[in-house]
Amino acid sequence: MQAALTVYPVVGLPEIDRGADLAGMISDVAELADGDVVVVTQKIVSKAEGQMVEVDPNDPDAKRLLAESQAVRVLRRRGDLVVTETRHGYVCANSGIDLSNVEEGWAALLPEDPDRSARRIRDGIRARSGRTVGVIISDTFGRAWRRGVVDVAIGCAGVRGIVDLRGTRDGLGRELVATEMCIVDEIAAAAELVMGKASAVPAAVVRGIDPTVLGEGSVTREVVRPYGEDLFR
Amino acid sequence: MQAALTVYPVVGLPEIDRGADLAGMISDVAELADGDVVVVTQKIVSKAEGQMVEVDPNDPDAKRLLAESQAVRVLRRRGDLVVTETRHGYVCANSGIDLSNVEEGWAALLPEDPDRSARRIRDGIRARSGRTVGVIISDTFGRAWRRGVVDVAIGCAGVRGIVDLRGTRDGLGRELVATEMCIVDEIAAAAELVMGKASAVPAAVVRGIDPTVLGEGSVTREVVRPYGEDLFR
Repeated sequence: MQAALTVYPVVGLPEIDRGADLAGMISDVAELADGDVVVVTQKIVSKAEGQMVEVDPNDPDAKRLLAESQAVRVLRRRGDLVVTETRHGYVCANSGIDLSNVEEGWAALLPEDPDRSARRIRDGIRARSGRTVGVIISDTFGRAWRRGVVDVAIGCAGVRGIVDLRGTRDGLGRELVATEMCIVDEIAAAAELVMGKASAVPAAVVRGIDPTVLGEGSVTREVVRPYGEDLFR
Repeated sequence: MQAALTVYPVVGLPEIDRGADLAGMISDVAELADGDVVVVTQKIVSKAEGQMVEVDPNDPDAKRLLAESQAVRVLRRRGDLVVTETRHGYVCANSGIDLSNVEEGWAALLPEDPDRSARRIRDGIRARSGRTVGVIISDTFGRAWRRGVVDVAIGCAGVRGIVDLRGTRDGLGRELVATEMCIVDEIAAAAELVMGKASAVPAAVVRGIDPTVLGEGSVTREVVRPYGEDLFR
């Protein structure tokens, strides 16, 4: 069978500190090719961008209060969990704040503007390696109606967020009415399969993405559903 | 870079009619290996199982009424769209009923029991090819809060629906509190990337899945969030 899509873990990255040149580091350890999509987890982007805040590990309310400080809207509460809408428009648990894979006493906030983070990494990879790639910043979100979490895109550059198949024809030649595939979420999910939360591989390369999917893209503009359009908020 | 995951489209399947032996057909055109996960789209499973009903193409209400007949609960309405909870427990648009890629005047309902459909295909592949594979039945669902649709799992066999990383350690050696990855949804999403709605590739093979993920699995028991546990219904 001919492979259509291959997902490679990016191994060998050092521990990421504030100011780390992620684009350079990834270019150095991954053999990138034009048209690859590089998926970078939010955690190392937040670390490199210095989006870290101290939390008192002995204060049981600290994480919840921090999450609420990052939210424009609290949608649901259950015990320790708050489901919030962040100022970017993401709906997720605890405003995406994370205390795993960070130093004790610290929490990672989401990047300020993950689409911009993706553009910077994309530009940096081009500058360092000469390769033109798409970049997705991924994070692990829960869902309504379905148990378990999956990785989704919170930012992208050089890859379209949504691909509209409206007007293309189905296999029987009839026009498809509306199939707007959220390609960046599917790529983020595919990348997670080689990362593993415990093995701490914080980036992956997806090779073989349909070139028509590459181009201008933005998660906040394309994928985030505005409050007024949403049926479940 | 060493490939960790490869996704192959299953090409060369004939048009699927009622009674079609999907397991045999897939075994014949794909070079399967032990440990592969075979993702089969709902559409051809429904066709093979005869889950097709006539709809009057001139009746503007026909699809909505059919969708409501397949639902245990209507959650939202907007114009033509109804968001329903099916008797399997899936929350999706129009009870998962689909009129694309089927003959004019017909609609494909969801399989009666997609986990069972997956088990049958898995057993059939083992009988025909001697290979032990995981099988996922996938469908294309919308989401709350995010635009666009993605492929998710509606049934599985031989692959765990949710992998609980609770108790494993993060990269800094601290215990992860709860990371229940919905692996089957991520695999379904990865598979969609080689299918394309318009090119009508109705199955894919995902190779390189972590063997610890293979085992007893069920979407309806593991992934479907029961009504009472859900915060958004």
